Amino acid sequence: MSSPFGSLQESLSIPQVTTNETLRELHSKDESYHAPVKPEIVVYPYNAQDVSEIMKIAKHYRRPVYPFGVGSSLEGHVIPTEDGISIDFSEMNDIIEVKEEDFLVKVQPGVTRTQLNKELKKYGLFFTVDPGADATIGGMAATNASGTSSVRYGVMRDQVRDLEVVLADGSIIHTGSLAAKSSSGYNLNSLFVGSEGTLGCFTELTIKVSGIPEHIVAGRAIFPSVDDGVEAVVSILQAGIQIARCELVDEPSIEKVNAFSDTNYAIKPTLFLEFHGNEAGLNQDVEFTKDIVNEHGCSEIEFEQDTAARNKLWEARHTLAYAFIHDAPGKKMMTTDVCVPISKLAGAIKHARKLVDASMFEGGIAGHVGDGNYHITLMFDRGNEEEIQAAAALNEEIVKYALAVGGTCTGEHGVGIGKQKYQAEEHGESLFLMEKIKQALDPESRLNPFKLVQLKN
Amino acid sequence: MSSPFGSLQESLSIPQVTTNETLRELHSKDESYHAPVKPEIVVYPYNAQDVSEIMKIAKHYRRPVYPFGVGSSLEGHVIPTEDGISIDFSEMNDIIEVKEEDFLVKVQPGVTRTQLNKELKKYGLFFTVDPGADATIGGMAATNASGTSSVRYGVMRDQVRDLEVVLADGSIIHTGSLAAKSSSGYNLNSLFVGSEGTLGCFTELTIKVSGIPEHIVAGRAIFPSVDDGVEAVVSILQAGIQIARCELVDEPSIEKVNAFSDTNYAIKPTLFLEFHGNEAGLNQDVEFTKDIVNEHGCSEIEFEQDTAARNKLWEARHTLAYAFIHDAPGKKMMTTDVCVPISKLAGAIKHARKLVDASMFEGGIAGHVGDGNYHITLMFDRGNEEEIQAAAALNEEIVKYALAVGGTCTGEHGVGIGKQKYQAEEHGESLFLMEKIKQALDPESRLNPFKLVQLKN
Repeated sequence: MSSPFGSLQESLSIPQVTTNETLRELHSKDESYHAPVKPEIVVYPYNAQDVSEIMKIAKHYRRPVYPFGVGSSLEGHVIPTEDGISIDFSEMNDIIEVKEEDFLVKVQPGVTRTQLNKELKKYGLFFTVDPGADATIGGMAATNASGTSSVRYGVMRDQVRDLEVVLADGSIIHTGSLAAKSSSGYNLNSLFVGSEGTLGCFTELTIKVSGIPEHIVAGRAIFPSVDDGVEAVVSILQAGIQIARCELVDEPSIEKVNAFSDTNYAIKPTLFLEFHGNEAGLNQDVEFTKDIVNEHGCSEIEFEQDTAARNKLWEARHTLAYAFIHDAPGKKMMTTDVCVPISKLAGAIKHARKLVDASMFEGGIAGHVGDGNYHITLMFDRGNEEEIQAAAALNEEIVKYALAVGGTCTGEHGVGIGKQKYQAEEHGESLFLMEKIKQALDPESRLNPFKLVQLKN
Repeated sequence: MSSPFGSLQESLSIPQVTTNETLRELHSKDESYHAPVKPEIVVYPYNAQDVSEIMKIAKHYRRPVYPFGVGSSLEGHVIPTEDGISIDFSEMNDIIEVKEEDFLVKVQPGVTRTQLNKELKKYGLFFTVDPGADATIGGMAATNASGTSSVRYGVMRDQVRDLEVVLADGSIIHTGSLAAKSSSGYNLNSLFVGSEGTLGCFTELTIKVSGIPEHIVAGRAIFPSVDDGVEAVVSILQAGIQIARCELVDEPSIEKVNAFSDTNYAIKPTLFLEFHGNEAGLNQDVEFTKDIVNEHGCSEIEFEQDTAARNKLWEARHTLAYAFIHDAPGKKMMTTDVCVPISKLAGAIKHARKLVDASMFEGGIAGHVGDGNYHITLMFDRGNEEEIQAAAALNEEIVKYALAVGGTCTGEHGVGIGKQKYQAEEHGESLFLMEKIKQALDPESRLNPFKLVQLKN
């Protein structure tokens, strides 16, 4: 009665249950800097019934469960906090149905973003959320992932039409319907998206997809200051020009990229842009954009249309993280992730740059300027207590600043372990509501406990 | 101790509390066909503190509260279900702040849609959700309203960045932040939007606004069949053309409009379109759209650009409800409101037309084709039991059909009294979750009780 191992092996098939040391090790960590903790056991469900069975056994043996996609989370979401079961969804990776006419696709949670886009391409469709990592769709829904293109297409929460969810008691529910909109009942889709496995495990997701744009134009513009770059973006948005992607990279980051790639980019705040639409419309957008950026002191702007030239143009942005990682062998990456109102973004990035410059770290700053989300990427030594403290202190300063200007402690990476301590400050009284919801849905705190909301027992 | 009247009069000022018969009568009904019920008392809060006080008094005297905007709801949301307090938000109608750079506006709940748009126009901005009625922003958020333009700009839930909410115990919380996106905590914004006053009362809303489009083109296209019209829209969407508004009206509705307006529109399924963007892009969209509709058998298509000509072109759509109301003096309007996957829409509209033709009613069908939401407008005599039964039966058939094809019982009007009985069928097991949430947040069921979710006591 003291261990779920035997029961799990009886309920599932032999290869689905393992205590193999290497596999436990693999499920002890994600891509974050948070310290690994091995799960007691790793299970690989094939379907919702398996997950339901796992939940019942977990309940019986009072073990917590930790859902696991590919482990690309950045705040320790998949790391066990106590002895328990890591549920690996890699065997549930079927693309169940592409509903072309409805612009919907139904997938299992273990499907990855690139796997999905490869399939959708056959239909002239694509999945719009691009967080960089080749994460699973289940994991992206669990953290409400977003990325460079969310300024136009929205975040993960905007894409989810229906979820099949296994709850703490093993019951299987659906959170939505196939209708494009609904005013029926409480909106459970949005409650479960971003719940980080703390309210249930997703076993099927029906999500929105979009038509591949007829025409894509990418641009790169150089500004005298971060302020000018941000103001230019605000002006572009105010002019009603739809930006599909929009990233600002600051001077020291460009310098780092130059050193790493042996390139010669101007060491200036650089704005990367992308527009999706029809050719005539984009030509007009490009001309208008040129006028606007010039008004904001832009010294150089170039646009490219074909795929190879566009990729080349974005290279400095894409190389940024590698430049830092490559330069700091053996160190761990920490990425801050606040999001502020766009009117506060220029000030926030300047503040962030000052902090980094005054710290012991080099750090690159890149912002999803269209929605006010920006990241500092820095490398630190997890074996060095001074560096750990300094990195944590810097992260905290960044969060405090964001909260003070009406922002959030995490724009897209989620709470996990790392942003737990800022929940009370960010949400105030409404944290009690979140706790009530957790209490109502998972009273024994069996689902990814100590993440996002902590129940006081 | 048996009545809240004295306490309310002590806490608020005299003109804020009334038991005037005419005012109680005014707060006994909305624009729906549901039977009126007078509240015991009507109060007019000036601010969140007043609402908090009302909640505490309501709790002390065990009286339910019924939030009231302008009473434009269509499913009896504002109608009292037992003796209690109608909270009228008309005195809380300040536009608190327009945050131009952030594309945000902060308003009190009693601000109406046209009041807001009049103010926003000064900034070159507009509020995108257009449900037809001049509803309050608070009411629109409470029902997750949408309308003709949601295919492009999203529904009310997509616009809400932050809500100030007074909970059942009188505490005042915020559900979001000013950040454009967040992965922090459970998403309370989306839970409260569409909760129909059953979880709390909104006292302040921060919502997204958009730049007024540079260029608008409206179109009207005539098709041999409803199928052709719907398929044309799917093809337009698949071609990646962004439609801003898109409405399909069926033949008998056009016939009714002709009789009412003395016009001579072709009695054919008619598609009304609108595109927002830059001039060059829209010209290309229009040409492409012409090709597509022609492939789907369109016999006539025309486009207009200037405001007067666009309004004229949309006239038949706008006149539809009036044509029915005018033709049935003394009768009440019932509007069905299901939403189905777009792949099921043509079939659903044909089914609806057959039902109407076989019924005792004339009825107009108009569909927000871009998102699968369609309405039958019919007039019935609320004094005639046979007509009441027949109208209810027709509504039920429409709902059952929508649920059978993966749709929802309400696309935009909400649950209120009218769609209560379909919640179990639509949501299945997840209705228990909704009940748990209601129980956790409003354990005494004091907030708009018997709407949306019914607690079993």
